[in-house]
Amino acid sequence: MARLYRRDVARKRGAPPGTLVYTGDEKASTEIQLIEYDEERFQEEVIKDPKVFQAYKDDPAVTWINVRGLSDVGPVVKMGEVFGLHPLVLEDILNTDQRPKFEDYEKYLYIVFKNVTWDAKGEANYEQISLILGEDFLISFTESENDILKSLRDRLRTAKGRVRRMGADYLAYCVMDLAVDNYFTVLEATGERLEILEESLLDPAANPSVREIQRMKRMLLMMRKSVWPLREVVMKMERRESGLFKPGTEYFLRDLYDHTIQVVDTLETFRDMLQGLMDIYLSTVSNRLNVVMKTLTVITTIFMPLTFLAGIYGMNFKHMPELEWTYGYPALIAAMGMIAGTMYYWFRKRDWL
Amino acid sequence: MARLYRRDVARKRGAPPGTLVYTGDEKASTEIQLIEYDEERFQEEVIKDPKVFQAYKDDPAVTWINVRGLSDVGPVVKMGEVFGLHPLVLEDILNTDQRPKFEDYEKYLYIVFKNVTWDAKGEANYEQISLILGEDFLISFTESENDILKSLRDRLRTAKGRVRRMGADYLAYCVMDLAVDNYFTVLEATGERLEILEESLLDPAANPSVREIQRMKRMLLMMRKSVWPLREVVMKMERRESGLFKPGTEYFLRDLYDHTIQVVDTLETFRDMLQGLMDIYLSTVSNRLNVVMKTLTVITTIFMPLTFLAGIYGMNFKHMPELEWTYGYPALIAAMGMIAGTMYYWFRKRDWL
Amino acid sequence: MARLYRRDVARKRGAPPGTLVYTGDEKASTEIQLIEYDEERFQEEVIKDPKVFQAYKDDPAVTWINVRGLSDVGPVVKMGEVFGLHPLVLEDILNTDQRPKFEDYEKYLYIVFKNVTWDAKGEANYEQISLILGEDFLISFTESENDILKSLRDRLRTAKGRVRRMGADYLAYCVMDLAVDNYFTVLEATGERLEILEESLLDPAANPSVREIQRMKRMLLMMRKSVWPLREVVMKMERRESGLFKPGTEYFLRDLYDHTIQVVDTLETFRDMLQGLMDIYLSTVSNRLNVVMKTLTVITTIFMPLTFLAGIYGMNFKHMPELEWTYGYPALIAAMGMIAGTMYYWFRKRDWL
Amino acid sequence: MARLYRRDVARKRGAPPGTLVYTGDEKASTEIQLIEYDEERFQEEVIKDPKVFQAYKDDPAVTWINVRGLSDVGPVVKMGEVFGLHPLVLEDILNTDQRPKFEDYEKYLYIVFKNVTWDAKGEANYEQISLILGEDFLISFTESENDILKSLRDRLRTAKGRVRRMGADYLAYCVMDLAVDNYFTVLEATGERLEILEESLLDPAANPSVREIQRMKRMLLMMRKSVWPLREVVMKMERRESGLFKPGTEYFLRDLYDHTIQVVDTLETFRDMLQGLMDIYLSTVSNRLNVVMKTLTVITTIFMPLTFLAGIYGMNFKHMPELEWTYGYPALIAAMGMIAGTMYYWFRKRDWL
Amino acid sequence: MARLYRRDVARKRGAPPGTLVYTGDEKASTEIQLIEYDEERFQEEVIKDPKVFQAYKDDPAVTWINVRGLSDVGPVVKMGEVFGLHPLVLEDILNTDQRPKFEDYEKYLYIVFKNVTWDAKGEANYEQISLILGEDFLISFTESENDILKSLRDRLRTAKGRVRRMGADYLAYCVMDLAVDNYFTVLEATGERLEILEESLLDPAANPSVREIQRMKRMLLMMRKSVWPLREVVMKMERRESGLFKPGTEYFLRDLYDHTIQVVDTLETFRDMLQGLMDIYLSTVSNRLNVVMKTLTVITTIFMPLTFLAGIYGMNFKHMPELEWTYGYPALIAAMGMIAGTMYYWFRKRDWL
Repeated sequence: MARLYRRDVARKRGAPPGTLVYTGDEKASTEIQLIEYDEERFQEEVIKDPKVFQAYKDDPAVTWINVRGLSDVGPVVKMGEVFGLHPLVLEDILNTDQRPKFEDYEKYLYIVFKNVTWDAKGEANYEQISLILGEDFLISFTESENDILKSLRDRLRTAKGRVRRMGADYLAYCVMDLAVDNYFTVLEATGERLEILEESLLDPAANPSVREIQRMKRMLLMMRKSVWPLREVVMKMERRESGLFKPGTEYFLRDLYDHTIQVVDTLETFRDMLQGLMDIYLSTVSNRLNVVMKTLTVITTIFMPLTFLAGIYGMNFKHMPELEWTYGYPALIAAMGMIAGTMYYWFRKRDWL
Repeated sequence: MARLYRRDVARKRGAPPGTLVYTGDEKASTEIQLIEYDEERFQEEVIKDPKVFQAYKDDPAVTWINVRGLSDVGPVVKMGEVFGLHPLVLEDILNTDQRPKFEDYEKYLYIVFKNVTWDAKGEANYEQISLILGEDFLISFTESENDILKSLRDRLRTAKGRVRRMGADYLAYCVMDLAVDNYFTVLEATGERLEILEESLLDPAANPSVREIQRMKRMLLMMRKSVWPLREVVMKMERRESGLFKPGTEYFLRDLYDHTIQVVDTLETFRDMLQGLMDIYLSTVSNRLNVVMKTLTVITTIFMPLTFLAGIYGMNFKHMPELEWTYGYPALIAAMGMIAGTMYYWFRKRDWL
Repeated sequence: MARLYRRDVARKRGAPPGTLVYTGDEKASTEIQLIEYDEERFQEEVIKDPKVFQAYKDDPAVTWINVRGLSDVGPVVKMGEVFGLHPLVLEDILNTDQRPKFEDYEKYLYIVFKNVTWDAKGEANYEQISLILGEDFLISFTESENDILKSLRDRLRTAKGRVRRMGADYLAYCVMDLAVDNYFTVLEATGERLEILEESLLDPAANPSVREIQRMKRMLLMMRKSVWPLREVVMKMERRESGLFKPGTEYFLRDLYDHTIQVVDTLETFRDMLQGLMDIYLSTVSNRLNVVMKTLTVITTIFMPLTFLAGIYGMNFKHMPELEWTYGYPALIAAMGMIAGTMYYWFRKRDWL
Repeated sequence: MARLYRRDVARKRGAPPGTLVYTGDEKASTEIQLIEYDEERFQEEVIKDPKVFQAYKDDPAVTWINVRGLSDVGPVVKMGEVFGLHPLVLEDILNTDQRPKFEDYEKYLYIVFKNVTWDAKGEANYEQISLILGEDFLISFTESENDILKSLRDRLRTAKGRVRRMGADYLAYCVMDLAVDNYFTVLEATGERLEILEESLLDPAANPSVREIQRMKRMLLMMRKSVWPLREVVMKMERRESGLFKPGTEYFLRDLYDHTIQVVDTLETFRDMLQGLMDIYLSTVSNRLNVVMKTLTVITTIFMPLTFLAGIYGMNFKHMPELEWTYGYPALIAAMGMIAGTMYYWFRKRDWL
Repeated sequence: MARLYRRDVARKRGAPPGTLVYTGDEKASTEIQLIEYDEERFQEEVIKDPKVFQAYKDDPAVTWINVRGLSDVGPVVKMGEVFGLHPLVLEDILNTDQRPKFEDYEKYLYIVFKNVTWDAKGEANYEQISLILGEDFLISFTESENDILKSLRDRLRTAKGRVRRMGADYLAYCVMDLAVDNYFTVLEATGERLEILEESLLDPAANPSVREIQRMKRMLLMMRKSVWPLREVVMKMERRESGLFKPGTEYFLRDLYDHTIQVVDTLETFRDMLQGLMDIYLSTVSNRLNVVMKTLTVITTIFMPLTFLAGIYGMNFKHMPELEWTYGYPALIAAMGMIAGTMYYWFRKRDWL
């Protein structure tokens, strides 16, 4: 958790505001993909020289520039020049510890948020996605080599439906919708883990640990940190009268907002459920202590009087008539058996055994 | 709980926004009922071909189309064409994991919420109800085979009162009022369960479990998730100046809003009461441990000194004058009795027994 | 608590909105009192036929109709006709499980809230008061036979001061002021109970129970449910520019609002204090366990070594020189006394005894 | 705490709104001080007949009337007549259990709040201060004999600075500033107590009690009840465009508001710290129990096997070869020593001793 | 914590508002640095006589006056005269226990906040920074000898970029950005401490203490007290249309606001994590108690029956046939071994060992 902000500071501390340094962990070399489409056309190419964007900029078709990997600062800077981006936007794109936010720079919008996936170790892994939405272009920046927007690109290429008819704003919506869907996927798996955890807490044979509960709590804390601001971002997008979002997209943004609220709701519900699991855990620990103490008490209560009786008849008094009796010994053993039996019955009745 | 959103994702993940797939569990075949009424007339029929709606659409009488079962996507799609519904609305109708919401599409309103009933296993069962409210028509979609709106239909058929005089907006209000009444019914039963649970917690013979508390907590969590947004829906309906709600309906909406708030209040009160039960449970566990430990301590405290004394006179020293005394043994037994009696009295006074 | 809403549902479920059924428990027969007054005049009568109201309606003097007992639905309905009340208002008057609310019906205001009194068993008892405030009339509905507005009527009859000079709105204020004063009375007694409860928690001889704490918690929860909405009601009355509240009454409403906030504040303070009592209770239980365990440990620690020594000299080895010594026995007893004394001193110093 | 509102009710219950009764505990006889000043002049006198105010009322210099002790209702009533005060204001001045509030009566403002001081027993003691601020006069009412505004009067008398140049509104600000400073003083002492309490919690020799924590909690609860509304009062004063606050005073009110927020902040911080102390307390109790249980376990674990061995060789079997051995006894003693030593070492390593 | 406000009160109590006294601990002698720059020029000097400011005041270049150390009240007062500062501003500059705030005095803005650094003992150390931002000048006041703004001065001196082109408002932004970066640094170290603390809690060999958790909690409480109001300050700066912030600075202020929110988010996350650590701690304590009790129970359960058996055969009955048997003794020892073995196996299976 703490890591989320640490790298940022460690690598940039002391540098004046506006310095362009990539602060992420991913070392993917930068790859730039350019897609140009309208209802008729679909054209795709991998480009090397960002200067080529200039040509596409004035084309009325939608231009989607997808930048994967941010370790090369060069192309990002050049893109900034071509599209006239503010230095702070460039800085925020490269600084991959941004809090999700939405900023209106009049000629374009800057939207940044986190995409979540499960990594190999089964932990939630966050990757920053930055979007620059202009009149008829969208630039997307992703950190890692994973081509997380592939499914969207495939849809663009094959389908001729709404996604090809509508503009860059709808494309931006599609990217965010994809990210919100990923939150649902992660939450789904989290819900399953919660169920497994609960079963292990209620299973007397299992040995559940408070650590696992805390680990999930922290995971939800972390997700919360990226989901709550995302919700604000989508709300602002839906409300603000930026001319860059066309009238037809408005219902889709409302829909996206509903999904984001569902994610938030589920997250909060999971947090409440985890609190419930913690309660179950603590009461389980108490109950186990009770079981241990009852065992101890039963053993002590049964054997102490018997041992005492044996002690009595182990005394060396000269005049102890019982010792002389022929059936003294068996009588005592019988009495001891009766005492133990009575006590056992009494404990049974009080549900201690 | 987690299930609520899981199905949604599992069945739709990867599909582009706007894909029409029914995501619920209910496999009821779709049945469409059409009711046409005004103060004079009342006409009811089960129809097969949704195209027939076109005719009714322009009739000034109120048209109520009740769709039961959503596994057939076809009729829903056709209805969408006839009434000019937005693709996202169709998608939300079929996706039965919607968060309750209210959306104004100018020509019609889309309202979606959950109806709650007890299922056979005594668990709260949620079913999604979607309403499309137009100028003089109402379309309702319910998931299961249960004819949950039957009582309303019967009222329409028999009564000639307000419900027949007023328009489609009042009909929509009646559907929602029915759903809110169902929440009261479920809460009532929940209140009774809470009382039973509390009695079992306070009964020393019973063996209450933290699990039952957690189960109720989760049930309330779940209901909360559908009631809080419902409250928002009704508030928006009451406040918004949509021309589709006629002036005369306004007081009824305010009344509905009050009921929704009562549901929310009761829910929150139950949550507070459950917290109280958890406190009772934990203190019960602690008190039982105290009882166990007191028993152990009393037994140990009484028998340890006695056993020690018996040990003393079991020693084999040559010179132990007491052993030779004629009344040594009975004197010791008497002394032991006195020690035990004193201790017993002392424990009684300190309320340990 | 749960009862508050249960009756409502049980008796009305399935009935269409607007059905007039009295849902309360009180079986008082309805009694209608009519008071007509201005600065000069004061006229009082018990009436049978509600139609007579028509005459009073147009009189410029203030008309106060006080209806006690709601089991007769008839007079209420007739009054509704005479004064032109909305059907929902009539329904809410009879349904005595209303959440306190304030509704503006233009020609009159509908205000409903709870009056609280101690019943014979020392539990807070809530009774619903409904007020219809018109231009120059006030209709009040109370559930039970208790004449809770008697003191106000007496004041009207005897005093010639402000209450007789001012209009129906001031009278409505007086009724509410009376109800708020009753909350103070109940809170006062609650505060005393809290103090008694706390003393019993801190008294080592007493045997306080978590149950009493929970009972008070629930009582406060219940009061909260009627006080918080009452606060909203008074706030709306103070703020809203309803022409039915005359300029001179405005300062009194502000004063009433301040009192309501004081009730709310005190309630919340009591809740915090109860939480503190719960903390004291739990730590008391822990401390008592500590005392028990210390006793056990002290006894065990003193007697185990002594018993062990006695066991040593009870062994039957042939060659145990100590057994032959003349002063072996007294020497051992002395050693045992020293061991016990040392331990006792050590426990004293560590504050275990 | 509960006392704060109890007296009010007990003494006034049943009385109609507007009855003038002093509800406080202080029995100080009323003393009225009149101060008249502007930049040049300063005139001070103790007066008997409130009618004399009439003369001062129209003087352009600032008039400050300071009333100390409220048990005489007479002068207050007369002042009300002279200055045209609303009956509710008079009632609130005498009812010394007011929640701090700010009321605008157009011709004058009514401000009421609590002053806090330490009483002889080291408890926070609250005294109500009421201010009536008019165009060029300020009337202040304090409950007790303590001349809490003395320092302000001295400043007026000696200094010729800002306080003499500015108007009655600045004087009102000075009174409130004095009260806020007193909250700082009390908080300062509270902070010191918290530190002492914490040290005693962490000192293993001390015997801290949950009671002290609860006592401080309650004290902060109480202060909160008077500070939070005071904050609202100052905020309203700062924001409201009452002509009675002159432009030059506005920055001072903002400054006062900042101080009030600091008091609130510190109070909330202390509450959080107390919660932390409660956590420390509870874990201290748990840890002490652990220590006790470890002691018990160590003693039992060491002596049980030894006693068992002694028991073995105390048996009376005919054929027990060890008993005959010459060095049987010392060998057993040595073995017992080794067992005890091993166990001691093991417990040491596991940090139980 | 408590210290933060105590000094303020102790040194100023009783003084009239507006008295100028330095309330901090730092005894640094005042040093005034004057920097004058625009894109071309850069001029720096240490000055003695504040009157010299008059000359610089009207220069169109940006004037930055940096005052280090506040124990000399003289220069501050003179500066106040030259720049026409309000007496309350001067008071707040010297009173170094201010809550961060932003005040608009029309001709200039007064901004005050805390800078945080680690001190030698590894504790967060707060120093107050006051900024006076005018049309073309910035005055900064810092408490200690530490030249915390050195890096900014160096940047101004060497770089010719944005910082030299833009005005005094951008300079003010740079100072605040520096302070926010320092919060990140402190949080980063705090995150590391949290991780170490967690590891020690989960390490069974370590002996973690609740004290360390409380110490961190308090540290976060303290930071919160200076960060939350800082967030408000930046929000007001971003929103308010003060002409003193030029259009070009607006994006930078938005960026600063985002950073402040990140600090707040991280702080709140750390608080949640600390709560989780407290939960781990408490469950660790419970688990350790369980381990202790299991040990005790195992020992008691194994040895009590064995000791009892030994006691039986230590009795002195005349007729005990077993005692005479040749193999009585070894048979008993074997039986005892079997009993102990069975019990050991049983405890193993129940996971008590």
